[in-house]
Amino acid sequence: MTAQPKPLTAADLGLMIGFPPSADKRVTHANQLLGPYNRWSFQHELQLNRTADVWRGSGPVAELAYDLRDLDQITYSNRAGTQFTFDDMVELSYTDGIVVLHGGKIIYERYLNGMQPHTLHAWASCSKSMTGTIAAMLAHEGLLDPEALVASYLPELAESGFGDATVRQVMDMTTAMRFREDATDPESENWQYSVAMGWRAKPEGYVGAETAYDVLPIMQKAGAHGERFAYITPNTDVLAWLIRRVLNQSLAAAMQERIWSKLGAERDAFWIVAEGTVETAGSGLITTLRDMARFGQMLLQQGQFNGQQIVPGAVVADMERGADPAAFARGPAASPINQGHSYHHQWWMTHNGHGAYYALGYGGQHLYIDPTAQLVIAKFSSYPTPTPAGNEFYSAFAAFPALAQALMS
Amino acid sequence: MTAQPKPLTAADLGLMIGFPPSADKRVTHANQLLGPYNRWSFQHELQLNRTADVWRGSGPVAELAYDLRDLDQITYSNRAGTQFTFDDMVELSYTDGIVVLHGGKIIYERYLNGMQPHTLHAWASCSKSMTGTIAAMLAHEGLLDPEALVASYLPELAESGFGDATVRQVMDMTTAMRFREDATDPESENWQYSVAMGWRAKPEGYVGAETAYDVLPIMQKAGAHGERFAYITPNTDVLAWLIRRVLNQSLAAAMQERIWSKLGAERDAFWIVAEGTVETAGSGLITTLRDMARFGQMLLQQGQFNGQQIVPGAVVADMERGADPAAFARGPAASPINQGHSYHHQWWMTHNGHGAYYALGYGGQHLYIDPTAQLVIAKFSSYPTPTPAGNEFYSAFAAFPALAQALMS
Repeated sequence: MTAQPKPLTAADLGLMIGFPPSADKRVTHANQLLGPYNRWSFQHELQLNRTADVWRGSGPVAELAYDLRDLDQITYSNRAGTQFTFDDMVELSYTDGIVVLHGGKIIYERYLNGMQPHTLHAWASCSKSMTGTIAAMLAHEGLLDPEALVASYLPELAESGFGDATVRQVMDMTTAMRFREDATDPESENWQYSVAMGWRAKPEGYVGAETAYDVLPIMQKAGAHGERFAYITPNTDVLAWLIRRVLNQSLAAAMQERIWSKLGAERDAFWIVAEGTVETAGSGLITTLRDMARFGQMLLQQGQFNGQQIVPGAVVADMERGADPAAFARGPAASPINQGHSYHHQWWMTHNGHGAYYALGYGGQHLYIDPTAQLVIAKFSSYPTPTPAGNEFYSAFAAFPALAQALMS
Repeated sequence: MTAQPKPLTAADLGLMIGFPPSADKRVTHANQLLGPYNRWSFQHELQLNRTADVWRGSGPVAELAYDLRDLDQITYSNRAGTQFTFDDMVELSYTDGIVVLHGGKIIYERYLNGMQPHTLHAWASCSKSMTGTIAAMLAHEGLLDPEALVASYLPELAESGFGDATVRQVMDMTTAMRFREDATDPESENWQYSVAMGWRAKPEGYVGAETAYDVLPIMQKAGAHGERFAYITPNTDVLAWLIRRVLNQSLAAAMQERIWSKLGAERDAFWIVAEGTVETAGSGLITTLRDMARFGQMLLQQGQFNGQQIVPGAVVADMERGADPAAFARGPAASPINQGHSYHHQWWMTHNGHGAYYALGYGGQHLYIDPTAQLVIAKFSSYPTPTPAGNEFYSAFAAFPALAQALMS
């Protein structure tokens, strides 16, 4: 349907071939987020980053049933009116792997770019939705009061801009924080934060914040909390710190105990850890594709999966209600493609007719859940740019809703 | 029997307690090998190091049967004549975990210092025996000729001291290499090697070797190969490079395909990788304790385990024959406690009446195999010093042979 060329794979590109690979084909900690190096790095995260393992437990795998279907007849159009099939989307959108569950069965599953079913892949910012779900569970249990101020749990943040934000504002990212995004300016908050989180190498003679526990307390407020949605990752780091404080457990241990050991996962999960063995709660999760789909299917089933109630039904119901679309519309993330959205418990809520919601991550990571169509889509990708050129391929905004519509008809 | 105090645990020491832990209780990449920090680090290797995962495969776990026995009646004496029980040894020798198999059944299993059955623990130099076993398999398959010169496979090493060594000399560590051990002298080979392997931070302005592929080619010869056993880890790195070259696979992939996916392991294994994602083949393996024991039991059973022939029987038989004790006696590792030993395929061979052999690692890691007594002992420890003070507790030299004797009577 389209003459657009298929993306080159890591093997096509010659990345990390041979022992040693040639100098210009080496993927390193420094270049791992950049295209085309992320064609290799997103499937080899442990080799490039320190991690905390999340044990799957010793129980059996929750096998997913298959009812494979041909989705090539499903078409959708981008805003320019060009028509694509679902298979087009998969092949052209730098897909590493995609699995589609409908009614709890796998109807479509493909692996590209050398990925295999057991390959561990980066979630990128989809990780936020895992951290948010765990925090929502703790709120339900009464361990975290959504209306309490952050400083009441974390006195270390009392003097920071986060101190007088509520837990709910952190969860829904309606804090008003000064966070200049210029990652090349050493004076900007993002630059310091990037160093502390291990994304940027420390320059020689560096004397700034060493860990998340050093950088979050010096972040300052800009405006009033609670008025608008502003997507900044340090909120997720505060949320993870809250989880650790009230449980006296690492985020990895909390996830292991409450979710991963119950899910019947095929493999362990992993969190990339920054300096000080602090999990990068907003970006660092790593799992297989089907295990990401299991997590989505569990939520679709109101938290009931693998023979047990993993997340309380009330937590999922609260999540599905979403937050305030007006606060979203007032914020800097609002755009024509996400009209009517809100952001709640670290999930993107469409508030569309199906009540669909999704996790979304750098480089094309997706976990899309449509409760009405009984649809879960997990997609790992390795786009060469942070924001794909051509949002028509940004699956949650066109191809996934089109598939949901087709499955309902 | 002894008034010696029990070692403090990581929790007793307050290591890494709290979010964040206090500054003096933090375990870091820089202090991870030092006591007492290794009481924590050896059980949290992934959080401190980048790793390559070795998938266990999707098959069932090869469950180990139990026939637990009280070993507290088993006593042995150190050279000073002081008597200890087996339980003394376990409690006093900084044990993290120990499992003893007799006739294929677990007769003893204990976890200390916060370790659990699913905890992933460092093998340290026991890793060499895994690398050596894989290399021996490739020799058996004709992919590696033990009599061929290293340079015939690795032209990159032609100008190095390794170039005219045979593969067998590398496997049995009878190469004669210049390798000054002074890890504090930047002029010493060990210092450069430590930087390239990621054990020592690069000083500012460092311009030396970046990876194993840079440092091995500049190592020089000192004497004639084949005359005496000299235990230097770069031999194992050459061996791993040979494995990668002939298989065109990483060491992790080779281990996954040939051993780990067949063993019915409980969990994945991991190799610590140095700069350039090169596995630290001489020290970097990480597994659970019972999975280490499974590897030992497989060798005890002549390579037959979990319903299949994993390592060819001829490879194990060759290994059990050992190498030349005279070459061992001529070398710098010879001491009163290892009289009559040889070193073969990266294993320590006792040539005792039982034909016992073992893997041995920094900080008290052991995998001891006694084919006559049908005994396998896997022991993880975290000694505060590289060589335990008081070899009476160095288990392979007293407690393990005493146990073997007792089980035979």
